[in-house]
Amino acid sequence: MPELRKDPVTKRWVIIATERAKRPKDFALVQEEKKTGFCPFDYGNEHLTPPEIFAFRPADTEPNTPGWWIRVVPNKFPALDPNIEPERYGHGMYDAMKGFGRHEVIIETPDHNATIATMDLKQVEEIVWAYKERYTQLAKDKRLKYILIFKNHRRDAGASLAHPHSQLIAMPITPKRVMEELEGAREYYNYKERCVFCDMINQERLENTRLVEENEEFIAFEPFAARFPFETWILPKRHEANFGNITESEVRNFARILRDILHRMYKTLDDPPYNFMLHTAPTYGEGEIYYHWHLEIVPRLTKVAGFEWGSGFYINPTPPEEAAKFLKQVELQG
Amino acid sequence: MPELRKDPVTKRWVIIATERAKRPKDFALVQEEKKTGFCPFDYGNEHLTPPEIFAFRPADTEPNTPGWWIRVVPNKFPALDPNIEPERYGHGMYDAMKGFGRHEVIIETPDHNATIATMDLKQVEEIVWAYKERYTQLAKDKRLKYILIFKNHRRDAGASLAHPHSQLIAMPITPKRVMEELEGAREYYNYKERCVFCDMINQERLENTRLVEENEEFIAFEPFAARFPFETWILPKRHEANFGNITESEVRNFARILRDILHRMYKTLDDPPYNFMLHTAPTYGEGEIYYHWHLEIVPRLTKVAGFEWGSGFYINPTPPEEAAKFLKQVELQG
Repeated sequence: MPELRKDPVTKRWVIIATERAKRPKDFALVQEEKKTGFCPFDYGNEHLTPPEIFAFRPADTEPNTPGWWIRVVPNKFPALDPNIEPERYGHGMYDAMKGFGRHEVIIETPDHNATIATMDLKQVEEIVWAYKERYTQLAKDKRLKYILIFKNHRRDAGASLAHPHSQLIAMPITPKRVMEELEGAREYYNYKERCVFCDMINQERLENTRLVEENEEFIAFEPFAARFPFETWILPKRHEANFGNITESEVRNFARILRDILHRMYKTLDDPPYNFMLHTAPTYGEGEIYYHWHLEIVPRLTKVAGFEWGSGFYINPTPPEEAAKFLKQVELQG
Repeated sequence: MPELRKDPVTKRWVIIATERAKRPKDFALVQEEKKTGFCPFDYGNEHLTPPEIFAFRPADTEPNTPGWWIRVVPNKFPALDPNIEPERYGHGMYDAMKGFGRHEVIIETPDHNATIATMDLKQVEEIVWAYKERYTQLAKDKRLKYILIFKNHRRDAGASLAHPHSQLIAMPITPKRVMEELEGAREYYNYKERCVFCDMINQERLENTRLVEENEEFIAFEPFAARFPFETWILPKRHEANFGNITESEVRNFARILRDILHRMYKTLDDPPYNFMLHTAPTYGEGEIYYHWHLEIVPRLTKVAGFEWGSGFYINPTPPEEAAKFLKQVELQG
């Protein structure tokens, strides 16, 4: 059974994923490239993943057969287990919790070699619809406090399979980074009676040195205090705390700006490894007034400052203003 | 001029290192292995580093010539600049600060191929003495609020040179992770009137499932909520907030347990890449009552969960109890 454990000093929760316990010899294997040519996410291999939870597929096709264009399945090696209750308990001075939760994989396309940066816009919209569908379904379970949607692109960003996919982890606690963001946004709101993210949108549009792209409903810029070279955030212009409330037209505009930004990175940085994380309010309504959902995209370009893992301190060798210039230069496809 | 910038939501400070601004094409170069056989930290190349700040060397040798056994030099590409004042200023809604501070390199040995895990104990003690010496000197400058000593071992942990070295960054603000630790330790102290780290030491000794090694003055264990496989913390048994106050006998015992733990990792995990970070109280006295200095060692074994960068949420596939068993099995040299 996976276990959630809390650090008594920093209050950081960690998943101890006992189901896939790693011994010393396993780590060398993980780092090796697997190039077998076989992929469980390709057409015809549907029986090799756990049965699908949800798919976009023609009405005349059976679940777990080819024909789908988006497919959502449970992670075969889930970090959390949906079949236990999120019971809390002490362990001496420490706090722990049974590892209840969900871990799903969103297979973004049947095309093994595709990538969002160069995908048809329609397909990117379908991916965003799938995010919304799963988010909305899982948010109904009151035991799940937070739903984290993210993507690891390429091995250097933590992807163990090359086939385009995103992941969703729904968990019984709100992660520390989210709590910090909520707290920071609340403090700012208490002081200014304005949303800190709305203020950022205004300043970035006015200043126009870190802004990369905007459309009617979304804006993308390099954050002022970017941690990483070419770190880019995408925000809806409409103040809204919860990703689950994205509208139909916002799905289209979000898909467009997401594909464009990833395309700009693809061209500028030669298909870099990256992570993106959807930051949204918890499912239980906290943050409604002062929080503002957004997506953070982080290319994984440098290992120079490994100490950042431990210190929470970042050295960024590329000023965000420089990064914005490079990304803006890219000519977009139609 | 490097600039410190603060994220308005999370209050995380970032160093924008403008002096070594990276353009898109530079990143491919950084990731390439450099195997020229030439090393600026070897004997005879002393003129290729900035002039030494401090060294252990025979009395009859000149600075910046061979003969030394420990050498401290300014980083050739410093993240912070000692020749400016730490002036604060606003930038619209954002907060920034001139990038004042110090960035030094502690060259741990003249032997290019040595590593702490297999070094003579005497030499490891000298490294710790050098840490203390630089810490104590820099702590006198009241503009420097925090002194971070850390080590990146091997390229996968961010080391750009193979020659054994540690780094020191002295900065005009206290990093976020340290602030969180101080706050967590203070809250615990307010509630219990005991140090949370002292309580951990007691529970780990009693429980004896995550403990790896102890001597008269230090203890090493896998933390209950370990973020990473084989993450290991070393704590002095004596309650002391500030590394600068390490005693002569503690230097010896710290050097011994540090070398032993790194040796255990070396054997168990085949000389893994790792980072270690010395966690100490800020120089201005905060935390004296409730904080407890320690060293956190993090082997860099897995890329599986890249999303952790963004979420502050960790999935650890190796329970710390399992990791402790493997590390304890290692037979130590005399």
